[in-house]
Amino acid sequence: MKLKVKLLDIEAVKPVVVLNEEDAKELGCYPSDRIKISLNGKFATAIMNTTENSVAEGEIGIFDEVWKLLEIKDGDIVEIKITPRPKSIEYIRKKIDNQKLNAHEMKAIVSDIVDNNLSDIELSAFVTTSYIHEFDMQETISLIHAMVETGDVLDFGNNVIDKHCIGGVAGNRTTMLLVPILAAAKLTMPKTSSRAITSAAGTSDTMEVLCDVSFNSEEIKEIVKKTNGCIVWGGAVNLAPADDKIIRIEYPLSIDPDSQMLASVMAKKKSVGSDYLVVDIPVGKGAKIKSWEEGKALAYNFINIGKELDIVVKCLITDGNFPIGKGIGPSLEAIDVLLALGNKGPRDLINKTLDMAAAGLELAGKPNGREIAEKILHSGKAKEKMKEIIEAQGGDPDVKMSDIPIGDKTYLVKSERKGTVRRIDNRGINMIARAAGAPKDKGAGVYLHVGGGDNIKIKDPLFTIYSENERKLDNAIELANKLKSIRIGGVILEEIR
Amino acid sequence: MKLKVKLLDIEAVKPVVVLNEEDAKELGCYPSDRIKISLNGKFATAIMNTTENSVAEGEIGIFDEVWKLLEIKDGDIVEIKITPRPKSIEYIRKKIDNQKLNAHEMKAIVSDIVDNNLSDIELSAFVTTSYIHEFDMQETISLIHAMVETGDVLDFGNNVIDKHCIGGVAGNRTTMLLVPILAAAKLTMPKTSSRAITSAAGTSDTMEVLCDVSFNSEEIKEIVKKTNGCIVWGGAVNLAPADDKIIRIEYPLSIDPDSQMLASVMAKKKSVGSDYLVVDIPVGKGAKIKSWEEGKALAYNFINIGKELDIVVKCLITDGNFPIGKGIGPSLEAIDVLLALGNKGPRDLINKTLDMAAAGLELAGKPNGREIAEKILHSGKAKEKMKEIIEAQGGDPDVKMSDIPIGDKTYLVKSERKGTVRRIDNRGINMIARAAGAPKDKGAGVYLHVGGGDNIKIKDPLFTIYSENERKLDNAIELANKLKSIRIGGVILEEIR
Repeated sequence: MKLKVKLLDIEAVKPVVVLNEEDAKELGCYPSDRIKISLNGKFATAIMNTTENSVAEGEIGIFDEVWKLLEIKDGDIVEIKITPRPKSIEYIRKKIDNQKLNAHEMKAIVSDIVDNNLSDIELSAFVTTSYIHEFDMQETISLIHAMVETGDVLDFGNNVIDKHCIGGVAGNRTTMLLVPILAAAKLTMPKTSSRAITSAAGTSDTMEVLCDVSFNSEEIKEIVKKTNGCIVWGGAVNLAPADDKIIRIEYPLSIDPDSQMLASVMAKKKSVGSDYLVVDIPVGKGAKIKSWEEGKALAYNFINIGKELDIVVKCLITDGNFPIGKGIGPSLEAIDVLLALGNKGPRDLINKTLDMAAAGLELAGKPNGREIAEKILHSGKAKEKMKEIIEAQGGDPDVKMSDIPIGDKTYLVKSERKGTVRRIDNRGINMIARAAGAPKDKGAGVYLHVGGGDNIKIKDPLFTIYSENERKLDNAIELANKLKSIRIGGVILEEIR
Repeated sequence: MKLKVKLLDIEAVKPVVVLNEEDAKELGCYPSDRIKISLNGKFATAIMNTTENSVAEGEIGIFDEVWKLLEIKDGDIVEIKITPRPKSIEYIRKKIDNQKLNAHEMKAIVSDIVDNNLSDIELSAFVTTSYIHEFDMQETISLIHAMVETGDVLDFGNNVIDKHCIGGVAGNRTTMLLVPILAAAKLTMPKTSSRAITSAAGTSDTMEVLCDVSFNSEEIKEIVKKTNGCIVWGGAVNLAPADDKIIRIEYPLSIDPDSQMLASVMAKKKSVGSDYLVVDIPVGKGAKIKSWEEGKALAYNFINIGKELDIVVKCLITDGNFPIGKGIGPSLEAIDVLLALGNKGPRDLINKTLDMAAAGLELAGKPNGREIAEKILHSGKAKEKMKEIIEAQGGDPDVKMSDIPIGDKTYLVKSERKGTVRRIDNRGINMIARAAGAPKDKGAGVYLHVGGGDNIKIKDPLFTIYSENERKLDNAIELANKLKSIRIGGVILEEIR
């Protein structure tokens, strides 16, 4: 069936089209069925809605997502077909029934995810079941290959290095320091990051405060050619594009299966041709990984998958009991990064970054990595490199801390007792920052006035909540009062008698 | 925030509204977020999409589903709020992590399902996990109470009888004969049915060929007052309304967890105040229940849940190895029913119905039930009662078989060998009828020319496929050739030497 395009200028996150009821009837399809739209050899699959009048017979109403996929314009004539029920739904059913998926089945599922052939219902069933019946090593490798094959693959030659952090530690913005340090050390670091899933900010959310992070593969090649590094959002590049579609489902459910996470990370690394990979595995209460053993098991999974993919992996088990840096939330974290590049930032952030840089340089054959990294940071070379990268990514290289807007609704949380800061709960701090609006509201978040081991008095400031919105600030304050995320203890930990 | 309504005349299955980007920004929400719309004390929750131009600032675009929920009109001023993340998502997470849900948690989930507070992603996670980590008896009872409490409850006095079939047997339209027989026997039978999930037709799909099936609680009371019985679609009544929302998710995944099914059935029965319940449990290859043991276990589950709910239950394990009746698909099954009411229909359908009627009458204290039922059917009283019901439900009481349109694209499948009909695979026949367009296309389906045990020659007709659409007919023919759903055997079953 051929239909005339009518752009509707509506954004729905998913591709949607609207057909007149009569055309839908003739095509033999019903609201929420999927249809395939083709124009000039390009294809898109979309969910169909119907209308009696607002789109005439012979027309097709197009939401923004379809318009972007097909570069379609008003009046274009498109060809429409019913999409048959994807075969991959059977494979999802198989996994729900706790059977293993082979490489062919995994590829079919991933291809249908990438081509938008699966509805939210089907995608969520896949994500939920792969959390409950977790993928084994072979399924994970199949998933990685399928994710790489259904996306772009970039080639930056040799000496390509990458890093990844398991997350769960609030603030932890080492990437934005590591990239300029390692790029200045003549390694190639084409870094793609996710946005936050359960935390207050991902690297992409934070970098976006300073410059664009949405670039396609060609643009990334250009940026990296100029600067040896980049810090971009993985979702905008067509690298392992299944990943962000899966993350979109994990997000509302707050689930993040280990195997899915391993696949997601390693597929991205393989797609940019990484030779070396440093993985930061924070372990601690309130971090994602609770125990040392769990952290080590994960590390060996990374190393073993790396072997299958020709990537040399080094994992660092790090202290996840406290946030890293002072700011939690995109803008507040960007300010920490700018400070650190000027050697004035939070010491914990700087030290952790230098250790990770050392590990990376050692993987790449430079045993005195820590020394090299310190020199690059202290000499201002890292700062210069970051300016280059910000400029290459369309930002203002001379951006100052004062240029970065933060939420104007604030609330200071003070200590109700005196003593020593025993623990700062990452999960709690992230939740407060999220309640305040982060990561969607860039200027929202939490600024810590204390660190682990600090000795404080009653009424000393603990942290400030920043929000762009009065209601969200109230929610964050309420949560802060409930969570008591900073634990203050005396020297006596417990009296027993 | 107050906004002016602009009806968009778009149907999307789910409630959707469209806000101007500027208003969305001010409200602090993003595409796919949920917002709550209120007008004159009525509330609805909807998924938000955004637009730059097609809805102006200060306006809100309304899809049909929201318009139906709120009885809203162009120019109305509605109040908009962001919906906080529902607490029930945490409980779904808990279940994903294989923990038991208590009555309070189950109620929260079911209430949010009914109020459209959960997205397809969250709903699908709930359905998938409750299939994998199946509910125990206590959770199932909690689920039933929650489903009953979140819907209307009808009171028809004493002697209310109901029936249910586990399904899986193609054709099996006993309900449409049982209701007129039992209503004519002065029992009250306010029957609500689902639409087909994996079969070619549900009772509602078939009854809809003859008259309306969509009535609200008040209308059902009126119908039953007049006729002692009704055959209506459960989804249109506000009885245990969570059920159809759950079925909408199960449908594309083709999953139907036992506990969910028990809850769904028993909640509907409780909501109409059933005193007695007859359950048809077909057992056989290709039926839903494969083994006698499985059937018996399910029967005891029904009986035990019945005890908790004050419903006396009798379960009949029936032969599920063959379809019941000749027609498979809404219109073809409706024709079987009309024939049976005139004593000319398929014998298997008539006999099974009479046995079930006997069981029901015996539950209600009439030991000679089979005799009573036969008399009612043979005397034409059942036919008269069915005419009353069809008329009360807005159909033509004098409808004839020839009035019922069936698909004009047909294909006759013939036997490739001679022998005896050993098995007719319900699942295969259902799949063929569905491929031909059933249950959505009423006139599509399969008409069987043979029954179990029939002796046939080469080229004898086995079944005819009916479709309203050439392409779907081709799909059905292809499937029929692949499935070989009718097994023809000689006297010698196997040669061994």
